[in-house]
Amino acid sequence: MNLLEPLFRWNAVEILLSDRARLQGMLDFEAALARAGARTRVIPEAAAPAIAAKCRAELFDNEALANATALAGNPAIPLVRQLTKLVEKEDKEAARFVHWGATSQDAMDTGFVLQLRAALDAIAPELQKLSDALAKLAKKYRATPIAARTWMQQALPTTFGVKAAGWLDAIDRHRVRFGELRQRALVLQFGGAVGTLAALGDKGMDVAAALAEDLQLRLPTLPWHTQRDRIAETVAAFALLTGSLGKIARDISLHAQTEIAELHEPAAKGRGGSSTMPQKRNPVTAAVVLAAATRMPGLLAAVFGAMAQEEERGLGNWHAEWETLPEIIGLAAGALHHLTETMSGLEVDTKKMKENLERTRGLIFAEAVQMTLARSLGRMAAHELVEAACKRALAKGRHLRDVLAEDRTVKKLLKKNELARLFNPAEYLGVADSMIDRALQAHNAMRPKASAARAPKRAKNGD
Amino acid sequence: MNLLEPLFRWNAVEILLSDRARLQGMLDFEAALARAGARTRVIPEAAAPAIAAKCRAELFDNEALANATALAGNPAIPLVRQLTKLVEKEDKEAARFVHWGATSQDAMDTGFVLQLRAALDAIAPELQKLSDALAKLAKKYRATPIAARTWMQQALPTTFGVKAAGWLDAIDRHRVRFGELRQRALVLQFGGAVGTLAALGDKGMDVAAALAEDLQLRLPTLPWHTQRDRIAETVAAFALLTGSLGKIARDISLHAQTEIAELHEPAAKGRGGSSTMPQKRNPVTAAVVLAAATRMPGLLAAVFGAMAQEEERGLGNWHAEWETLPEIIGLAAGALHHLTETMSGLEVDTKKMKENLERTRGLIFAEAVQMTLARSLGRMAAHELVEAACKRALAKGRHLRDVLAEDRTVKKLLKKNELARLFNPAEYLGVADSMIDRALQAHNAMRPKASAARAPKRAKNGD
Amino acid sequence: MNLLEPLFRWNAVEILLSDRARLQGMLDFEAALARAGARTRVIPEAAAPAIAAKCRAELFDNEALANATALAGNPAIPLVRQLTKLVEKEDKEAARFVHWGATSQDAMDTGFVLQLRAALDAIAPELQKLSDALAKLAKKYRATPIAARTWMQQALPTTFGVKAAGWLDAIDRHRVRFGELRQRALVLQFGGAVGTLAALGDKGMDVAAALAEDLQLRLPTLPWHTQRDRIAETVAAFALLTGSLGKIARDISLHAQTEIAELHEPAAKGRGGSSTMPQKRNPVTAAVVLAAATRMPGLLAAVFGAMAQEEERGLGNWHAEWETLPEIIGLAAGALHHLTETMSGLEVDTKKMKENLERTRGLIFAEAVQMTLARSLGRMAAHELVEAACKRALAKGRHLRDVLAEDRTVKKLLKKNELARLFNPAEYLGVADSMIDRALQAHNAMRPKASAARAPKRAKNGD
Amino acid sequence: MNLLEPLFRWNAVEILLSDRARLQGMLDFEAALARAGARTRVIPEAAAPAIAAKCRAELFDNEALANATALAGNPAIPLVRQLTKLVEKEDKEAARFVHWGATSQDAMDTGFVLQLRAALDAIAPELQKLSDALAKLAKKYRATPIAARTWMQQALPTTFGVKAAGWLDAIDRHRVRFGELRQRALVLQFGGAVGTLAALGDKGMDVAAALAEDLQLRLPTLPWHTQRDRIAETVAAFALLTGSLGKIARDISLHAQTEIAELHEPAAKGRGGSSTMPQKRNPVTAAVVLAAATRMPGLLAAVFGAMAQEEERGLGNWHAEWETLPEIIGLAAGALHHLTETMSGLEVDTKKMKENLERTRGLIFAEAVQMTLARSLGRMAAHELVEAACKRALAKGRHLRDVLAEDRTVKKLLKKNELARLFNPAEYLGVADSMIDRALQAHNAMRPKASAARAPKRAKNGD
Repeated sequence: MNLLEPLFRWNAVEILLSDRARLQGMLDFEAALARAGARTRVIPEAAAPAIAAKCRAELFDNEALANATALAGNPAIPLVRQLTKLVEKEDKEAARFVHWGATSQDAMDTGFVLQLRAALDAIAPELQKLSDALAKLAKKYRATPIAARTWMQQALPTTFGVKAAGWLDAIDRHRVRFGELRQRALVLQFGGAVGTLAALGDKGMDVAAALAEDLQLRLPTLPWHTQRDRIAETVAAFALLTGSLGKIARDISLHAQTEIAELHEPAAKGRGGSSTMPQKRNPVTAAVVLAAATRMPGLLAAVFGAMAQEEERGLGNWHAEWETLPEIIGLAAGALHHLTETMSGLEVDTKKMKENLERTRGLIFAEAVQMTLARSLGRMAAHELVEAACKRALAKGRHLRDVLAEDRTVKKLLKKNELARLFNPAEYLGVADSMIDRALQAHNAMRPKASAARAPKRAKNGD
Repeated sequence: MNLLEPLFRWNAVEILLSDRARLQGMLDFEAALARAGARTRVIPEAAAPAIAAKCRAELFDNEALANATALAGNPAIPLVRQLTKLVEKEDKEAARFVHWGATSQDAMDTGFVLQLRAALDAIAPELQKLSDALAKLAKKYRATPIAARTWMQQALPTTFGVKAAGWLDAIDRHRVRFGELRQRALVLQFGGAVGTLAALGDKGMDVAAALAEDLQLRLPTLPWHTQRDRIAETVAAFALLTGSLGKIARDISLHAQTEIAELHEPAAKGRGGSSTMPQKRNPVTAAVVLAAATRMPGLLAAVFGAMAQEEERGLGNWHAEWETLPEIIGLAAGALHHLTETMSGLEVDTKKMKENLERTRGLIFAEAVQMTLARSLGRMAAHELVEAACKRALAKGRHLRDVLAEDRTVKKLLKKNELARLFNPAEYLGVADSMIDRALQAHNAMRPKASAARAPKRAKNGD
Repeated sequence: MNLLEPLFRWNAVEILLSDRARLQGMLDFEAALARAGARTRVIPEAAAPAIAAKCRAELFDNEALANATALAGNPAIPLVRQLTKLVEKEDKEAARFVHWGATSQDAMDTGFVLQLRAALDAIAPELQKLSDALAKLAKKYRATPIAARTWMQQALPTTFGVKAAGWLDAIDRHRVRFGELRQRALVLQFGGAVGTLAALGDKGMDVAAALAEDLQLRLPTLPWHTQRDRIAETVAAFALLTGSLGKIARDISLHAQTEIAELHEPAAKGRGGSSTMPQKRNPVTAAVVLAAATRMPGLLAAVFGAMAQEEERGLGNWHAEWETLPEIIGLAAGALHHLTETMSGLEVDTKKMKENLERTRGLIFAEAVQMTLARSLGRMAAHELVEAACKRALAKGRHLRDVLAEDRTVKKLLKKNELARLFNPAEYLGVADSMIDRALQAHNAMRPKASAARAPKRAKNGD
Repeated sequence: MNLLEPLFRWNAVEILLSDRARLQGMLDFEAALARAGARTRVIPEAAAPAIAAKCRAELFDNEALANATALAGNPAIPLVRQLTKLVEKEDKEAARFVHWGATSQDAMDTGFVLQLRAALDAIAPELQKLSDALAKLAKKYRATPIAARTWMQQALPTTFGVKAAGWLDAIDRHRVRFGELRQRALVLQFGGAVGTLAALGDKGMDVAAALAEDLQLRLPTLPWHTQRDRIAETVAAFALLTGSLGKIARDISLHAQTEIAELHEPAAKGRGGSSTMPQKRNPVTAAVVLAAATRMPGLLAAVFGAMAQEEERGLGNWHAEWETLPEIIGLAAGALHHLTETMSGLEVDTKKMKENLERTRGLIFAEAVQMTLARSLGRMAAHELVEAACKRALAKGRHLRDVLAEDRTVKKLLKKNELARLFNPAEYLGVADSMIDRALQAHNAMRPKASAARAPKRAKNGD
């Protein structure tokens, strides 16, 4: 295990991205190709089970493959060679038909798609877990006032429920996106050397259809060896998710600051300590998620930067994907998993939220006063009056309410108790409640849809 | 006009991304907000037309706004101030209700969405024009043999029609994506200072709904001031498109090389000349499109890198979007437009394609021979036999057919005329024809769909 | 003027990056080329002044050039054509020798280098101004305690002077880098069509040397039309600077938060207001600088992604530089300028710094206690003792000092007043003072060096 | 071994970037810290050897460390804990002083710097090997004509020696840069928890100096926990190198195309084969190097995007470096190594170069004719005359020489044999020879410098 793996990744997905899984993906392709070839009578019926029997990654020597890959330029070439030898030992006749009609990239791309499907299968319930946790926060803290902050300055009161609803809303959009991604990205790659399936004569489309059915992948209109938009779209989905996770982590990091202290990652023995400062409780998850969010745009750029692939097979740009794709999926999955754990146990300090609302001596209610005055004065004049009052309050260290109470215009327009009421956060929450309701309704409405978006049961060789 | 604008951009879209258009986008928001406020009786009915009458970009002083923006930190603040003053001159009462209930980012984000809609409106027919041009190439050159090249080496024969079908298939996927993007991205931004619409009391949702209807934008579940996934998804769509355009341009650049010379950009007086070499005819469009494809991933990374925005309003990361979003749209649109023009007039040299197929003295037919022999020998043994023959042919500068004709095994398995037939490109095109049919059918099937995806007619203030 | 220009850019540099400046850069090249040709007797002596006289950007029609650029593929071709016509009107003979021996890229690259030199000239004193402002802060607040924060949590006390010294140290490194960049990047581009100066026969090196001398640029070993490492290194220097500016801005944004309020950007009427919240004072400079820091990595990636340029002249990747290079310089210069202004007037609230140090009820002094106890107990045992005490203090809301005072081990090892002294920030600043001295000494030592690094006076046509 | 490691990486450097090496880097720091503490009498003299004895990575349980890292948030914390326990077993007293005065980041950053130094030590001779190979090509093919290509079109003749000299010149610049990088980047990180070395009282600078001396690293003016410009500059150097390697690989890929076939990667059994096409010989090294060049800009962007680190220790952005830095170094080293091997055995087909020069029927000599005519006609008029002749030649498939021979103006100005001579590539090479001489002289002049730039011998614990 890599030293930094448990920190940054999620083992349930990491295992799907390992070298072993990469080999198995290609071997699943080869096995299915043999079955499809047999079914369409392109290769002898008996060859299929003989080939499929050897399509198990644990039979292969990873180190030998690695060294041969350096020579060949891709891992499918030595894999096919090793596979042929393994089959040959048991069934010389069958060995003749290994990889029949395919090219390396068919095996590699389809293998990746199978890994991707497994990763999407693992991620979907975790995403739902995260959004359920956020929905719970939105509901529970629906009426808990907290200072909203814009440009990193206290702005107006809002509720912590609204904040959680905003997070929830974004995550639920990603659930929709990932559901749709299955439709778009889980497609077969099968074109033979140059996309014409020439080696299969006139049987190419039949084999392709049988192969897609066997692997339960969609049959694309055309092979896509150098049309990488689906690949780029896939990584964009992971990067989008990571961006939204990063936004939640950014918020947590800000709310967890010593001087603000409204939110804390769940405590655990030894978690977030320091090698030298005994009092520290560092927001480890925030760091992990923000690290992923910091790395992701560059990795995304690498994949998009590799899209202009040459002619029928790219030189270098295709190769640039090989290590980058699993890195992107692994980082996104790691960030998702760690944040899900954290949000499920998030510590919320409602007392501190209230305290912080009182820090500005009423300034946070300035817009509330302004909008009330504006009905008589107009928005701009009211803005200027209150802005001036804020400056006086700040300069003299007084409460805005007291400063306003002395203002002649204010006196004329507002009774004392009317003025006082404007400084109650609960009175200036607008449609916070409806916002939360809308997010929760949308969330609840996803339940059946989301499960439908998950993959149907598949035959045992499906992935 | 910027010196490089006609080269890199498309004026039909560039004008939608100008400062003027940016201002108008915000002003359209302010006008619609006034109407929505009036309709929901949040502001006086008479205020709406008075405000809307001044919401015309040409009434504003761009330089004064620019200078004030540097102070205020965003252009909406001085815009609202100037607008208020303009309204005031005519109608003091109405001026009180300018920007009622909104925050700067509501105007800026919605304004951008309106600019985006106009850009999508302009791009959709251009995209269709490009894909129609590609469909035409696919059909016309359906049976024109050309050397397929993998790793920048001649591989097998294919047809130029297949190549064009591959381009077409990708572009048609983008048309679907852009159609869907309208549904996802064309949403209202309206949350007031912190997303609760507090300044509107309990009327927030009513105003929001009226505003969305007025602008013919979708009403999102929640405001999205710091949930930028829709923005990032939007730029990803443009970057995806640019990547596929770059792939086509890369192919053209390769096929246009002096030694290959199969494709040429349409000639025009003065086009692609050199300041010093009189014989040059540079592929200017390929350069322009590849330049966009080179720049795009980094611009994309900037927007994704800005996703983790702080709390209720981001600091710096939101600002990072302001110049980047129009740059992305403008570059993509420019690349699309220039490539569309070029593909509509692409010069195809079928004679040169044929000539190039003969360059390797038969090596390009190696797989054809191998697959035929493989039926008797098995794939791997046939591969090794033919590989060795290729080496002998290369070493002695002989034709592969002649070398093979002397091989004992080959002699046993193939008659002379059977062997000869394997060296005819038309005989080794697999299901090229079906591939083209599939792409054309999919293309034709899009016709009604694509037009449905385009926006319905909108009220005059719609965008 | 662009709407967002005064916000994001610095007009003193922006003007050096304008289209006008771009044209003038190329024209300065053409004028110098004519003089160098005359001096080396490659063209008639009289041609030089006749050509040079027309090398003034204001004589050219930008719009016509823009349109011709779209055809030609680069702006140098139509520029040379217009220039030739202008010269022709006055001196037919001289017109024959315009652009003699050069290629478009020679003019464009050298023109850019001249623009770069002017930008570096403008930036150097601004950088010094910034570092002087930081040095002043380091000196003035040398002994002002402030909470150091790690992982966005209070860690130990430090002084604000140390923090400023850290900023200063980085900026002074950039000053060295920019000084060195002059040596590396300010080189002539001159190779003719393919880098052999073939059009000049055997006079190529003579003309090149004369041209370099005339423009006061270094003569490189070879032309570098497709060796773009100097270009990439140049933008890396700007991106490095922007990263360090971003770090300062990030710190300011954190220290300026409502609940922390230790630093504020200088107040100015209307600065950092909100369109709706009258109390807001947004840190506009922090936003501007962070926006630049957010955009820069992607722009940098674009230039590095364009390095693998084809053969003797790149296709598309060279073009990707044209708009990107000025964007990078302009954004960096804008961030530098705005931050320099802000740091020169930074408001420092030392009272608030002190207050915040007291927020944790002694936890911030945990390491101080630990290290004292560690002398007897060992580092790890002391760490565990104090960590446990911190947890008790937190749980019960008590001061760490009081909790520790009750601990049996602590009682044995520390007298009460010894324990108390450990909770004085001034007692636990380590070598803060020496750190500041080191930074200031290094800063002062740069004074002569920095000015030497600036360019010597140049002849009037130098840039 | 990772499946793709031998393809993309270089094992001599990969081993320096492994988890084991990462641990050893931190342990070397801890050992040196103990010695420095003892030397400055901050910890007991006997503690140093007791601690140093356990600072061997093989004594540590990587899996336990990995799991503990996920909790702690960084690997140094559990490492220090395990180290303390190991020391404790032998020497309880010494165990008290493990990690005395340091913070996690001191160990991690310095550990990385030590890994970096080892990597630079490995890379320097490989870089020299590459540049020597390029110098050899420049010398050997000094007079070998080849078509220079601009915008991927044949332009003028040049020599293959000039092309190699251009590659060489760039690589030699990188050698200078890497030499200088040692001075800039190989600095100690040592600041304690917040950069004041508070835990060491007034001994901080003494310990720091002793530590720097022990590790033979430079002592920086200040700790740089959140000033990451040196880190970013370091990765920029690797990215710059990779960009130039990518440029060479791009050229090879173009020259190796079937239709051009001027250069080939050295043949080796099984190298660059295809899983299905027996005739293929794919340029594997070009693919590997271009893959690195494609991935690098995004990785670079990630590190630059992580520069704005918070206050005294970053949250997430620092963490973003941990996996990215070794990835960058490893990819660059892999590309360097594979390209060095390839360039040392590059197959050069001078016959094919000559053949290709004849492909255009004289068009490639158009500038030569133009410049000769220009002496009489002026550059622009000559340009137009020759441009028109080129068009006629192309249209009629005739040789440019023959077309020109019929031109009235040409007839007047040039005798037949004069015209013929203009179509000899050897006659239009300008100062190609001087260019090569300049590059070779610069290369030879580096020999002593380069070796001086390499590190002096170090004490055994040095890295």
